[in-house]
Amino acid sequence: MPITAEILTVGDELCRGEITNTNSQHLAERLTELGIHVRWMTSTTDDADLLDQAFSRAAGRADVIVCSGGLGPTADDRTVDVVSARLGVEPVIDPDAKAKMERRFASVGFSVTPNNIRQVRVPAGAEVLANRAGIAPGFRVRLPADAPGRSADAFFVPGVPRELYAILDDEILPRLRAAAGLLGATATGVLRVFGIGESHVDHRLSGLIDGTAGVSLHFRIFFPETLVKLVVRDENEARARATLERLLEEARRRLGPACYGGGDDSLPSVVGAALRAEGATVALAESCTGGLATHLLTTVPGSSDYVLGGVVAYANAAKTTLVDVPAALIAEHGAVSEPVARALARGARVRFGASYGIGITGIAGPGGGTNHNNKPTGLVHLAVAGPNGERHRSRVWADTRDRVQRVSAMAALELLRRILLGLADDDQGGTR
Amino acid sequence: MPITAEILTVGDELCRGEITNTNSQHLAERLTELGIHVRWMTSTTDDADLLDQAFSRAAGRADVIVCSGGLGPTADDRTVDVVSARLGVEPVIDPDAKAKMERRFASVGFSVTPNNIRQVRVPAGAEVLANRAGIAPGFRVRLPADAPGRSADAFFVPGVPRELYAILDDEILPRLRAAAGLLGATATGVLRVFGIGESHVDHRLSGLIDGTAGVSLHFRIFFPETLVKLVVRDENEARARATLERLLEEARRRLGPACYGGGDDSLPSVVGAALRAEGATVALAESCTGGLATHLLTTVPGSSDYVLGGVVAYANAAKTTLVDVPAALIAEHGAVSEPVARALARGARVRFGASYGIGITGIAGPGGGTNHNNKPTGLVHLAVAGPNGERHRSRVWADTRDRVQRVSAMAALELLRRILLGLADDDQGGTR
Repeated sequence: MPITAEILTVGDELCRGEITNTNSQHLAERLTELGIHVRWMTSTTDDADLLDQAFSRAAGRADVIVCSGGLGPTADDRTVDVVSARLGVEPVIDPDAKAKMERRFASVGFSVTPNNIRQVRVPAGAEVLANRAGIAPGFRVRLPADAPGRSADAFFVPGVPRELYAILDDEILPRLRAAAGLLGATATGVLRVFGIGESHVDHRLSGLIDGTAGVSLHFRIFFPETLVKLVVRDENEARARATLERLLEEARRRLGPACYGGGDDSLPSVVGAALRAEGATVALAESCTGGLATHLLTTVPGSSDYVLGGVVAYANAAKTTLVDVPAALIAEHGAVSEPVARALARGARVRFGASYGIGITGIAGPGGGTNHNNKPTGLVHLAVAGPNGERHRSRVWADTRDRVQRVSAMAALELLRRILLGLADDDQGGTR
Repeated sequence: MPITAEILTVGDELCRGEITNTNSQHLAERLTELGIHVRWMTSTTDDADLLDQAFSRAAGRADVIVCSGGLGPTADDRTVDVVSARLGVEPVIDPDAKAKMERRFASVGFSVTPNNIRQVRVPAGAEVLANRAGIAPGFRVRLPADAPGRSADAFFVPGVPRELYAILDDEILPRLRAAAGLLGATATGVLRVFGIGESHVDHRLSGLIDGTAGVSLHFRIFFPETLVKLVVRDENEARARATLERLLEEARRRLGPACYGGGDDSLPSVVGAALRAEGATVALAESCTGGLATHLLTTVPGSSDYVLGGVVAYANAAKTTLVDVPAALIAEHGAVSEPVARALARGARVRFGASYGIGITGIAGPGGGTNHNNKPTGLVHLAVAGPNGERHRSRVWADTRDRVQRVSAMAALELLRRILLGLADDDQGGTR
């Protein structure tokens, strides 16, 4: 029988729809990786009665509970009190957390108020879970249900995402691994795919893990990308890693060039690493994406080493004066055309003195397209000019303005990646 | 007693953390607007037993249930079957939905399979809720709990967001308004705030709705913005609108210039409208934001009318050659300085021939800052040059690279907005 879990997220702001519940998703993803079956995800308000009902219900139907929220300094933060009451104990101050808070407050000249003290309490007898990212400690208790004989292994963390992530990684996942008997090993690998749709990814990986015990395959969609996650559980760590490596290699082979990386890679970071490896630099001339492709490259720390800059040549005059696109070329072919994309790429390269220039021109919509001359809304021309010549591609993306801009900017980076890595230009079977 | 609600979202992909649950948030927000108290939000897997338990639990503790998911064509989609079993009825085919599906399929040359037929079933006797955005109809039943005498008014919709939104707007909210006795009118207004933190927004609006019956005030955080929503319920529609207008006016007065708009406004659209009203144009020279400010302006359809373009001058050489920042100025003050921000703004304005130029330079981090010369990580200098001179501001944002880039780009647009609208440069009491 797999271990089952319930994720509880607490807060009036959740139940009023004021914030998106990303904590539940993160917790669900991480528990699923361990082979734990998340069966329930429940959110409720800060009301103490509802909270207690939620605790009892969860303890009655799940082996593990992870609960986030309600550990702050205000009177609305009731998790410690409600858990303590259910356990029949008093809340107590955790001396380590209190000392840490006092040091932190002293360093910025704040004094500790009674409200602040609320934050460093835990139910008496609870196992304290250190919070390296904040003040309120997490804690773990054996939480009883109202139903006789039922209880769950319950973990409590603050609702602030960076604190939740820190306590989860440092304190909770190692304990859950031990509790799940995953003493040896869980090996996890992620592959990142751009340029082919989710259904194609699924199809290409069909049967990949069949016949291999202890392995699971997961997907996650971040438009316009698909993430593929492989989780291998094995008593023996070396064997888990070996199995993972074998499956990742096979998955990469099946996915082909559309798989641009793994782990913490992003398309901008992979392009950046390839530029760095070549000692090369890049500059961009963007029209319909309005600077998004340049911005994406600069999301990577240290990107100033290889991103020389970009031009957003939205107006035709800017295309001409800033990156030397001949006005006659625009007049002849139109601003959204292969020759203009190529001229933008060349112009960016020359003007910035970069190794590579990227040119993007298109019709992001809504509207602006004309079908009679084969220039529909969503048409985008991309070009890269480099030391070994130019490459161009064009696509029509039938989507919202926002999504056309995003996928176009990513596709331009992908075109450069393929050039830098000597990969074929396009992929079969893709629709994105 | 307020009407209470439980939101149920169904799907293995939710419980594995593969997708973010935006449906729950949207439903919670819309129900809250009606004065309904959302007490529980529950997600579970596609498992029929768990689904049935969730239905019983929700029907036992809430007046209203809105359930999304499990209405698709595959064997995993079990909502209709589980609800039918709980009601003791059979699933039946809804003839209108079936006819619509057949017409739609015929128009693209598809044939209807037995799986497709699953999608147009509803429990016998259910009230059918038309789905203008898709194939599977929604439905409404009086759903009994296991607990004797308990039942809830239960609405079922597909999990595809655009279908959920359509059925919610067309079919569910009008019925809930009627059920809640909100026969007359609900008037809703949104205000958008940038530049002051949520707690300051809260403080400034404190007491705003006290003493006015039928009014509620809600917040929603979209970093780096805060949305304020006012909902007025009244039997008389004209009176509801009048009350709303009065409260919105008062809220705008209290929020001051930090409230940049309402409704579907965005900061880029408001800046765009102000530029358009003046017959003015804008160009940008960005460093640390890497093109994001320019991109934000171009997210607005039709922005090519007033955005001439931008330069991402990441390298110092690019600052000099593309937007004429004197190399000596950079050498003297450093690239992240007020004089360089001003020179970037002037350079962008002159090079593009724009009415207004925006300059952004800063240290987005992580790292790169130096405290000995008062240039910490997160320091950003912004400047706008226009027909009536220049304005500059600087801030230190202690946050992640991504968030420093986002808030800086927004702050640059905000500075231009204040110039265009003749508003004071800065706001008291803000920390963002």
